[in-house]
Amino acid sequence: MSYEARLVELGYILDPSELDMGRLVHATRVGDLVHTSGQISRLGDVEVKGKVGSDLTAEQGYEGARLAALGCLRAAKSLVGSIDEIVRVVRITGMVNVAPGFTDTPSVIHGASDLFLELFGEAGRHVRSAVGVQLPFDYAVVVEATFEVR
Amino acid sequence: MSYEARLVELGYILDPSELDMGRLVHATRVGDLVHTSGQISRLGDVEVKGKVGSDLTAEQGYEGARLAALGCLRAAKSLVGSIDEIVRVVRITGMVNVAPGFTDTPSVIHGASDLFLELFGEAGRHVRSAVGVQLPFDYAVVVEATFEVR
Amino acid sequence: MSYEARLVELGYILDPSELDMGRLVHATRVGDLVHTSGQISRLGDVEVKGKVGSDLTAEQGYEGARLAALGCLRAAKSLVGSIDEIVRVVRITGMVNVAPGFTDTPSVIHGASDLFLELFGEAGRHVRSAVGVQLPFDYAVVVEATFEVR
Repeated sequence: MSYEARLVELGYILDPSELDMGRLVHATRVGDLVHTSGQISRLGDVEVKGKVGSDLTAEQGYEGARLAALGCLRAAKSLVGSIDEIVRVVRITGMVNVAPGFTDTPSVIHGASDLFLELFGEAGRHVRSAVGVQLPFDYAVVVEATFEVR
Repeated sequence: MSYEARLVELGYILDPSELDMGRLVHATRVGDLVHTSGQISRLGDVEVKGKVGSDLTAEQGYEGARLAALGCLRAAKSLVGSIDEIVRVVRITGMVNVAPGFTDTPSVIHGASDLFLELFGEAGRHVRSAVGVQLPFDYAVVVEATFEVR
Repeated sequence: MSYEARLVELGYILDPSELDMGRLVHATRVGDLVHTSGQISRLGDVEVKGKVGSDLTAEQGYEGARLAALGCLRAAKSLVGSIDEIVRVVRITGMVNVAPGFTDTPSVIHGASDLFLELFGEAGRHVRSAVGVQLPFDYAVVVEATFEVR
């Protein structure tokens, strides 16, 4: 099964036309690597905002991290045309919008890691960091990804 | 016009001899990519310090991000000799020294992105993240950059 | 002297079997580069936890950064078999678990940089950032590294 078909089976649709490119680009290619801009926890009409540990539970943050991971796929797709061009996930940087005292950032970023593993299997295994920072417009999660592509 | 000439036209002079290398290096090359160390919002005698959202406005942070971007160019120049060796800006990581509650970090890091776009045009378009953290010695902004070079 | 031997002389033993891989990988290779996941300030039975600037001094943070750097070496070793495969240290991202107001994050991350310089000499010189964030499970330091390998 193609990754595009698998993603539909998982219940997701990616629409690169949603991307407002503005002065930035959402993905850039260097050789066989595609790097994405940091993607917020929003996809279509769904968004997860607030501080994890006060406004939001870790579980809600986890859902936000899934959205951010999908945003990374959409960003890559906007550049290479299809996520079937992706050979593997190389690395992600996971950033969580944390309330003071919240330290279980790995459980939040597992949302992104799990999405990649569900979709790509072994090819979804990646290196990562998962740290607590203060995020743009109070989004719960931002994820940056590097993919190896065909 | 060369990028070096364009930079002078924009009103900036880069002096790599200002760089104190210490135990670190400010730029390193791998193949056609040059990675810089995180560069603070200081250039020559001008510096922007403080927390954006309390000590500083977003506009002042924006000016700080321009200085940090210039620092990235200076770091690359210290390694490859001239910014005319730069083919394009691949990615930046923008970090803002934020006061609690300040979330418009993208507007601050636009200072770095705009500088690269003014200088390199289309070749200046890059992927990025723009997040709020606590920065060394209370500098307002730190920017790390990856350039593709000849 | 090999780097493995030099590391023993410095008093350290790396045991990749300690690594719980879980859903992640601790290191991934792309061409001649090995990227590690963020490594916490813990090695074997020794760990450094708490906020630097309140629970911990910068000196204690420095020791934590050494542990995190050793964790990066262990992660690379788990992938390529021996740290003698490492040609040089390309870059690190150093993240410090900071108390409000603590801004001397470079002095903390020097712990990682010094470890690499002691071990690899000139080949240990790298680009880096050193910023303050909120870290997983209150560990004092997380370091991510990119190594060039044979």
